[in-house]
Amino acid sequence: MEKKGFLLEGERLDDLQNGYYIIQDPEKFCFGLDAVLLADFVRASGWEHVLDLGTGTGIVPLLLKVRQKGSRFTGLEIQEECADMARRSVAYNHLEGDIAIVTGDIKEASAIFGEASFPIVTCNPPYMIGQHGLANPHLPKAIARHEILCTFQDIAREASRVLAGGGRFYCIHKPFRLVELFSTLTQYRLEPKRMRMIHPYVDKEPSLVLIEALYGGKSRITVEKPLILYEAPGMYTEEIREIYSVMGHER
Amino acid sequence: MEKKGFLLEGERLDDLQNGYYIIQDPEKFCFGLDAVLLADFVRASGWEHVLDLGTGTGIVPLLLKVRQKGSRFTGLEIQEECADMARRSVAYNHLEGDIAIVTGDIKEASAIFGEASFPIVTCNPPYMIGQHGLANPHLPKAIARHEILCTFQDIAREASRVLAGGGRFYCIHKPFRLVELFSTLTQYRLEPKRMRMIHPYVDKEPSLVLIEALYGGKSRITVEKPLILYEAPGMYTEEIREIYSVMGHER
Repeated sequence: MEKKGFLLEGERLDDLQNGYYIIQDPEKFCFGLDAVLLADFVRASGWEHVLDLGTGTGIVPLLLKVRQKGSRFTGLEIQEECADMARRSVAYNHLEGDIAIVTGDIKEASAIFGEASFPIVTCNPPYMIGQHGLANPHLPKAIARHEILCTFQDIAREASRVLAGGGRFYCIHKPFRLVELFSTLTQYRLEPKRMRMIHPYVDKEPSLVLIEALYGGKSRITVEKPLILYEAPGMYTEEIREIYSVMGHER
Repeated sequence: MEKKGFLLEGERLDDLQNGYYIIQDPEKFCFGLDAVLLADFVRASGWEHVLDLGTGTGIVPLLLKVRQKGSRFTGLEIQEECADMARRSVAYNHLEGDIAIVTGDIKEASAIFGEASFPIVTCNPPYMIGQHGLANPHLPKAIARHEILCTFQDIAREASRVLAGGGRFYCIHKPFRLVELFSTLTQYRLEPKRMRMIHPYVDKEPSLVLIEALYGGKSRITVEKPLILYEAPGMYTEEIREIYSVMGHER
């Protein structure tokens, strides 16, 4: 397809190798392995409507769409520039009927969409709190990485409000915040039911954690086998290669 | 050394292969890998006084004593039969000056020992709540495995009371209770600071979890690399073999 009319200066069109394409600007923010692992971790039927909080360039809906052909997706993004890029990606992929990109603030998600309006909420949130690491001076990247515009508390509160009874929340985050994440989720009746630690190597500390929480669920969690990224430097494990081949691939 | 006078009918004297011996009755309860892994996980200086809640036959103090030559230990055990066995093991090893076994209820630990009286508390608690699994009809085993005489809530409350400021609590437990464990610990200002998942094999769900909590600590946890038990059926990994060779060994 002709790229003309879809790309602004500095942007590029990346082949997700899953049948879809995504518009990204390397000066702003390009998705990484975490978005792919989050999408892979989601358990949703082919018809459940998914709300992705802080969708950025729309990567999580574009990855999930491959496995959930019948689902509708709504991506909420506060930065108009990102939302616009996501809308152009949706248009480029002819998915206007399936993926809606809404410009708005996560902190107002339940006011925007109404309470109990989705069965599934996903979020690849900013990992870092003020004290951890320096804020990236380039604003779009900084907003994606640091809790500048919203906190995990905001995300859990709004997720619990927009979720219908029995609805599920999926996120990826940093293991050092695990105690706080569990505490915040349960505060909003989002009971963690499934967790998977992601380790760069089998003999290293986890770098990320995937969490599934059930709105109104009872306390009992399944901790899954570790997800190991690399067999050797530059060489993904078979599981990661398999995930990439099913879900899509970053450049 | 002469066993006579130390063993009652049905009991046996097991060589921990760490310089000490332990009296156990296979009809009642014999320690397992979990006690060894808990002892190995504890970080204590050689002089800190350790309180072991629900010490059973005194296995955790007998394992810790090897690395912490200068430390004193107190083991609290509600079942007089177990406490008596533990006391005879202590006497057999000539450790009466180092390890004190007290018969008493975990639920009254702070009344027995006083508040802020220990820098370190350890506990290998019963893992199962009422609804999970059938209670073992043989009472000593059942009490060690099921929350019949005390709950994790009781343990966390009493641990927080007997710990001095900056004191540490160490336990091993079942991963399916992780959300509840974190919530109960933080309720009593025992902030989980270190965690390690124990997996039978690298590609299996964890069967146990080790937790270190700091009394009055700030929220930030280090999740350690997975601890893998077996390389192949019946064949321990190098790390487990190393732990056994340092800490001691079950029969």
